[in-house]
Amino acid sequence: MITLSLVGIGSGNPDHLTRQAVQRLEAADVILLPRKGAEKTDLADLRRMIATEILSNAPTIIEFDYPVRDADTLKYLDGVNTWHDALAGIWQSLITDHVATDGHVALMVWGDPSLYDSTLRIADRLLARGLDLKVDVIPGITSLQMLTAAHAIPLNTLGAPVVITTGRQLRDNGWPENADTVAVMLDGECSFSHLDPNGIKIWWGAYVGMPQQLLIAGDLSVISADIIEARAKARAESGWIMDIYLLRK
Amino acid sequence: MITLSLVGIGSGNPDHLTRQAVQRLEAADVILLPRKGAEKTDLADLRRMIATEILSNAPTIIEFDYPVRDADTLKYLDGVNTWHDALAGIWQSLITDHVATDGHVALMVWGDPSLYDSTLRIADRLLARGLDLKVDVIPGITSLQMLTAAHAIPLNTLGAPVVITTGRQLRDNGWPENADTVAVMLDGECSFSHLDPNGIKIWWGAYVGMPQQLLIAGDLSVISADIIEARAKARAESGWIMDIYLLRK
Repeated sequence: MITLSLVGIGSGNPDHLTRQAVQRLEAADVILLPRKGAEKTDLADLRRMIATEILSNAPTIIEFDYPVRDADTLKYLDGVNTWHDALAGIWQSLITDHVATDGHVALMVWGDPSLYDSTLRIADRLLARGLDLKVDVIPGITSLQMLTAAHAIPLNTLGAPVVITTGRQLRDNGWPENADTVAVMLDGECSFSHLDPNGIKIWWGAYVGMPQQLLIAGDLSVISADIIEARAKARAESGWIMDIYLLRK
Repeated sequence: MITLSLVGIGSGNPDHLTRQAVQRLEAADVILLPRKGAEKTDLADLRRMIATEILSNAPTIIEFDYPVRDADTLKYLDGVNTWHDALAGIWQSLITDHVATDGHVALMVWGDPSLYDSTLRIADRLLARGLDLKVDVIPGITSLQMLTAAHAIPLNTLGAPVVITTGRQLRDNGWPENADTVAVMLDGECSFSHLDPNGIKIWWGAYVGMPQQLLIAGDLSVISADIIEARAKARAESGWIMDIYLLRK
């Protein structure tokens, strides 16, 4: 049986790695390292740096290109599912070609494999295709954890629930019922601007945990435009952006 | 100015520590180490082990006893707030007695200081009392991350939101609206038994990430009683239990 380790590496700083993540990566025979297209070169560079500079016993590194996701597909979920199928095909060939049938292959996963990440869904497809695979998950620090740490705020208010959601959900469904705290991920469109800003505080961050980290916090009614502007500027300068925010009523 | 580092140490295994957590603990002059009463000796022991065996440059360790929270207070939140006030008083005396005015004091926080943890609220009280303090937060792996990793499942379904809540909230308010996934923490009473179990899957774990980890997963209608029994047995044997679960419709 092949062991497939999905190893959370945190959010942009090699010091986010846990001792367990380092051990599991060092124990692998092969690491599959995605190159995600031009705008995410920084992320591929970080993975490469971890493999070559942090691991004391570096496995064989196999780099591969990500298929492009069809963003024009009418139904968002169909596009994502097709893309996951394509990725599963790529993983399957790479594993078949480079990993022994009792070998150990690892992938470095941005953040934590449990949160808005595709790797567990792709691993499920490999199992469904009949690969003799043991899936092993090592959690990593998420960008949401880096956001609350950077702002030195708790995620939840005392004894209260928290909703973690996406920009798309916030736009389509508005503020979730019975929640005082909403964390928003995967938002390319500053979806907070669709809300009535009165009475809402926002803690926003981009590139959280990385050297170029940007943080803005305050009343949404006051600083919404500042965030939109800062985001556009940073994106134009870097060529890419990853941002996240917490909203509290 | 004194630096107060709240360092997430993960959920029961020293290998959950991040490189950043180790660095920050080693950089401190003093670590305040809580003893939480008889049933949580294991947790104090883990903190002591990290301080003495994992850190290569161990700071001075000051152990202190936690005040007892008045669980009989009519209003839950009043009881918690009074307890936080008492803890702030203890931290303040310890910091005043043992940390230089430009020194660095650290606390090891179970899980991550952002999630259902009191340390950021106590630090806020110290700031309100006028202590000249810089609060520095280092995220750690939460028991929720260990739960999903142990079951090798994603936290969210594709592009969908997740509600993180407490046992008390689940009992008082039922299943959160518009959510397909609910993660429940701080539940001493198997509050899932208050739900209509039909159509709900549960992934339950106790002592997640620790050597004595217990995992049960399946249809809530089928295994609810098994979990209640396993929990009671484990608690009776260990003298304490920490458990957590994910529910999905």
